Amino acid sequence: MKNSRRGAVDPFIVMDVMEAARQAEADGRHIIHMEVGQPGTPAPAAARDALTRAMQDDPLGYTVALGLPALRRRIAQLYGEWYNVDLDPARVVVTPGSSGGFILAFTALFDAGDRVALGAPGYPSYRQILKSLDLVPVEVQSSMENRLQPVPTDLEGVDYQGLMVASPANPTGTMLGREALGDLISTCHDKGAAFLSDEIYHGIEYEAKAVTALEISDDVCVINSFSKYFSMTGWRAGWLVVPPDQVRQIERLAQNLFICPPHASQLAALAAMDAGEELQANMAVYAENRRLMLEGLPKAGFDRIAPPDGAFYVYADVSHLTEDSRAFAAEILDKAGVAVTPGLDFDPVRGHGTLRFSYARSTADIAEGLERLKRFMESRG
Amino acid sequence: MKNSRRGAVDPFIVMDVMEAARQAEADGRHIIHMEVGQPGTPAPAAARDALTRAMQDDPLGYTVALGLPALRRRIAQLYGEWYNVDLDPARVVVTPGSSGGFILAFTALFDAGDRVALGAPGYPSYRQILKSLDLVPVEVQSSMENRLQPVPTDLEGVDYQGLMVASPANPTGTMLGREALGDLISTCHDKGAAFLSDEIYHGIEYEAKAVTALEISDDVCVINSFSKYFSMTGWRAGWLVVPPDQVRQIERLAQNLFICPPHASQLAALAAMDAGEELQANMAVYAENRRLMLEGLPKAGFDRIAPPDGAFYVYADVSHLTEDSRAFAAEILDKAGVAVTPGLDFDPVRGHGTLRFSYARSTADIAEGLERLKRFMESRG
Repeated sequence: MKNSRRGAVDPFIVMDVMEAARQAEADGRHIIHMEVGQPGTPAPAAARDALTRAMQDDPLGYTVALGLPALRRRIAQLYGEWYNVDLDPARVVVTPGSSGGFILAFTALFDAGDRVALGAPGYPSYRQILKSLDLVPVEVQSSMENRLQPVPTDLEGVDYQGLMVASPANPTGTMLGREALGDLISTCHDKGAAFLSDEIYHGIEYEAKAVTALEISDDVCVINSFSKYFSMTGWRAGWLVVPPDQVRQIERLAQNLFICPPHASQLAALAAMDAGEELQANMAVYAENRRLMLEGLPKAGFDRIAPPDGAFYVYADVSHLTEDSRAFAAEILDKAGVAVTPGLDFDPVRGHGTLRFSYARSTADIAEGLERLKRFMESRG
Repeated sequence: MKNSRRGAVDPFIVMDVMEAARQAEADGRHIIHMEVGQPGTPAPAAARDALTRAMQDDPLGYTVALGLPALRRRIAQLYGEWYNVDLDPARVVVTPGSSGGFILAFTALFDAGDRVALGAPGYPSYRQILKSLDLVPVEVQSSMENRLQPVPTDLEGVDYQGLMVASPANPTGTMLGREALGDLISTCHDKGAAFLSDEIYHGIEYEAKAVTALEISDDVCVINSFSKYFSMTGWRAGWLVVPPDQVRQIERLAQNLFICPPHASQLAALAAMDAGEELQANMAVYAENRRLMLEGLPKAGFDRIAPPDGAFYVYADVSHLTEDSRAFAAEILDKAGVAVTPGLDFDPVRGHGTLRFSYARSTADIAEGLERLKRFMESRG
């Protein structure tokens, strides 16, 4: 059988780092993991307890395609709690992770050949999912002066039927404020393009609350997930909020493409949403880790960074240190015992001069990793 | 925002039946569910226990995209146990249900505009998933004399780049024997078309063992799932077996489209595979239900049926009783209190004259449902 053309998506470069790290550990070395994009913490205890109880007497068959009604209501309630937005639960669609949300949203909104604009650097799977659905990712290079978030002038002269933004963003952790977000939404609406807002890192924010696109307009598609703030990556549960006239199309697609999101994960997610204390304890760890990173990275020589507004990443310009971030990451792994991600996954154009450092793991790991990076850079001279 | 054209897939007609049944129950009526396509039993106790234990100390983060290595090995072992096929675990891809398997396989194998042949009647989501991926479903009407399974002569003059078959099939429960399956595989290989075999109902078979396409050729794509025999519908865990030179493309797609199948479901599935005793007890219920159906449906007047080889469905020709299976199903629900599925979901051409009866639930329900059907048909005259 032949492989398709559209299925020939790019490999993740970070996978090579992870494999090299795994190999180093298999050889007996101790590695600090600053390459991972996920919390080290499990789902909240309340979520796991709720599932253990449910498994006693609920056969956990298929749910309806849009997700458990109680979970859709609870997600709508979150928009009241976090943003003071009054959201109709009928617009909430539970998805198999934000990944499932991307597939659903892209399929519901775009036809083959449609062009979807993305800011670079950005989450690499946007590009690859679009490509695999015969859509055309159009990467727009964002500027350091805009903290690597796209602005309307970046889009001038660009042909696109949709725009996807992320705030807080991966890999930079920078956010779009209300005005910047509103400008981008207006630009799309003026053009008749769909606006998609990836809000997966909402809740993990440090100095200001993240703004949801739903505070500005109902004519947007918001993608979110239980993976990050709710610490449930492996459960594959997320959600979309879509305009009322998109719900029916999304529902039919979800029935056919997924049948339903994992039932067990939906029950766990519902309970996780009321586990505020445990989630805030996780947040305190991220905040302390961030403080250590912002202090320690410059001391180690990684001083071209912007403080992240949210998420658990620092994106560093290392173009004065290397012209090959992949080789540099390999050297850091080999000599410092710290796994970091070369920027090429996020930005094929400029990523040869950038690295992403994750601080999602324990504070002890972060402190040790920073110490190792400092010693490594000193020895490198 | 505009809805896409490719996202405008057909609604499931069975959803109207399910909603009407739900409404009837909300009004205080007792309904027998012969419309559902899932077991009433939960995941095996061993599966649930394994997950409860794992949740104590495993954060259940992302797994690798192809699935937990132990689960891939155990699935490969199943091919030895069930079919005496020696399968390399490297060719096994754990997926988010068979739904995720379809998305992965179709995307990895076909480009926009490619044509995929399907036998009608068949599982309706094949058509809709293909359409949403900008592929062209080509439905081939199968014959009663071939027990509603496609044969090579049905495909003469048909242009297609792939063929999907299912054995045991939904909605008929009929199987393709080794020779029939081999003929279809040869036909595809001669033409250079991809061959996909949906084996989701394997394990639920009554008089002969189902044949896997892997007994005949390695150059096929097999789709399977933990939903049916392993009684884990809502968990969304399934698998693909693909040729060696397809694995890398599938892996990259899976990394981007899904990140990983649900971790909790993978752990539960691994334990379910060794719960033979509980699964065989479920099978004994299906076998007794089937016996009751084959005896009771003709007595009720539904005598144009072929005994199903597997799965838990009976597909009945009712064209002598109605020209509108949808109205007939509504009448049966209303007057008999039995929910059944009109054939139109499975066969838009001939389904106005067919019904699908599921016997996946308890034997007491099946006995009561058959009694109700008999009384209803007698009163209908």
